Amino acid sequence: MLFTACAESNQSDSETFAERVEYAIALHGGAGVISRDIDPEIKQQYVDSLAEALELGRSMLADGADALDVVEQVVRLLEDNPLYNAGRGAVMTNAETFELDASIMDGRNLAAGAVAGVTTVKNPITLARHVMENSRHVLFAGEGAERFADGAGVERVEQSWFYTERRHQQLIRARERDEVTLDHDDSAQSMNPYQAIDDNKYGTVGVAVLDRNGNLAAGTSTGGMTNKRFGRVGDSPIVGAGTYANNKSCAISSTGTGEEFIRHAVAFQICAIMEYTGASLNEAARIVIHDKLQPGDGGIIGVSHTGEIAMIFNSRGMFRGAADSNGRFEVAIWDENEAEASR
Amino acid sequence: MLFTACAESNQSDSETFAERVEYAIALHGGAGVISRDIDPEIKQQYVDSLAEALELGRSMLADGADALDVVEQVVRLLEDNPLYNAGRGAVMTNAETFELDASIMDGRNLAAGAVAGVTTVKNPITLARHVMENSRHVLFAGEGAERFADGAGVERVEQSWFYTERRHQQLIRARERDEVTLDHDDSAQSMNPYQAIDDNKYGTVGVAVLDRNGNLAAGTSTGGMTNKRFGRVGDSPIVGAGTYANNKSCAISSTGTGEEFIRHAVAFQICAIMEYTGASLNEAARIVIHDKLQPGDGGIIGVSHTGEIAMIFNSRGMFRGAADSNGRFEVAIWDENEAEASR
Repeated sequence: MLFTACAESNQSDSETFAERVEYAIALHGGAGVISRDIDPEIKQQYVDSLAEALELGRSMLADGADALDVVEQVVRLLEDNPLYNAGRGAVMTNAETFELDASIMDGRNLAAGAVAGVTTVKNPITLARHVMENSRHVLFAGEGAERFADGAGVERVEQSWFYTERRHQQLIRARERDEVTLDHDDSAQSMNPYQAIDDNKYGTVGVAVLDRNGNLAAGTSTGGMTNKRFGRVGDSPIVGAGTYANNKSCAISSTGTGEEFIRHAVAFQICAIMEYTGASLNEAARIVIHDKLQPGDGGIIGVSHTGEIAMIFNSRGMFRGAADSNGRFEVAIWDENEAEASR
Repeated sequence: MLFTACAESNQSDSETFAERVEYAIALHGGAGVISRDIDPEIKQQYVDSLAEALELGRSMLADGADALDVVEQVVRLLEDNPLYNAGRGAVMTNAETFELDASIMDGRNLAAGAVAGVTTVKNPITLARHVMENSRHVLFAGEGAERFADGAGVERVEQSWFYTERRHQQLIRARERDEVTLDHDDSAQSMNPYQAIDDNKYGTVGVAVLDRNGNLAAGTSTGGMTNKRFGRVGDSPIVGAGTYANNKSCAISSTGTGEEFIRHAVAFQICAIMEYTGASLNEAARIVIHDKLQPGDGGIIGVSHTGEIAMIFNSRGMFRGAADSNGRFEVAIWDENEAEASR
């Protein structure tokens, strides 16, 4: 229909121009088995914080900010919020420590930076950007990432900065489940109102952005898996799995069972399907999330070079939000809140 | 032509069956600016060792060995050979240490395992296989990979095992170049007959295999970049960049400037082009190596699900070999040795 209109008159061009998306942003705060019975107050905390992050990004984009700056600033806000499994509030390893991962990518030139297993950096997304902009490398892991941070001038914190009682309780429950059974004990009673979210939720926060100049960028940050083994690297710091951005196709951030997202190169694969088959972003994302992954693995948020937004997941919920220059502004957790966009 | 024959008679089916590839293997020992003026004796060492590794794989495949076993055993042979930048003979970091990376992938089920920055494991490819088979995870980095090795029962060595005087000299020259200029000093005279290979060669060894049961597997192992910074992770342990295998398309191992191979998800992208466009392995590999990467970045070896072999590079040379059930058996270093297969 757009094509027909263009072929008929130039006036149609200006009409469609008004509808064209000038900027767009999508973000997530993790996917998983998020119970619908969560405490209404806690639900509101998530809704409010997703809306706050979305509004920060939307307003920066409206003011003409660069896609990379928006990704970094919005991810930082989510990292600093203890509700999310990234930065402060990250989950604990089985050694009761915190190992944080992050990655960022610039769709203009495919420049990318990532860090895995950092332990003292307040905002891993900012360190990832330093790797991208100030080194020849893409990924630093562990002690090497810490040493890179020494020279990068990023804010450092003690491990206690990341600690929340909620995550400690989550680790204790995860250990108990590991010892007894790998199945989730749905009947367990708990005094912890976050338990309905935590026990089967994959953490991670991520942002994908199209700015007014047509540039795409994406970033992802996580504390990884509760009770993970020391040195395990998931998909979040893996460019192509957790994060990808290419101005020719789309910008993607993933959340879910990291190993599956690595095996399927999820973020890259969505961009590749768009590039090589001409599929829309939502079509490409559905192929990967619903046909390649298994139910429950997780999901993605993404923005295409035309401003199309996708928020696709195969888990029971995904904390997410989307906004664009045409006035769209919405946050959601479960499926029916946003049937059109999420499947 | 094959299609026409099949449509005409069943007899043609059995005729073409005789030509069908029952198994195939391709391997590499690194790509880069390999001078044509290398000492004939050293050239012969490379040719002989490539042929030895190729024959090990070919004979295992002829005997019906599993693709994964062939990949592991052939990579181990190359890791143990000090000629190659993997295992013994690995290049040195700028801290004069050795940090080894490896990955392996099973095309049957996309199972994958990888390790980054290991320091005491004699054969990192075997540790990668342990990660794949004996953990829920895909990638372990640094100290975490060492601890995983503690429980895996793999052979451990002192760092001195990896040391060769050749690699120490290479580090010293790399430091001198870094201090003076980033350009390669082509006029430098040296007493080291390997210098014409080392100064602009990306190490890494890799193997891709199709076995008699139609299963694909690939593996990659490296010491990384000479003079690399502590904790830098290249493409070799990144599933999707350095290694990929999917029985529906192909098995790939990469070698080159790791950062570029990550940004372009090279190994996965070749498989994705085959899957989504119907391109042949060589067509898909040429698109990625020649159209997406920059000249000099490196190359790949791969085997498709039909037994097609690709050895494509955009550097001045790539140590490589290929063999299959139809009697093909060849090793090569530069371009003209194998014009058809390498471009």
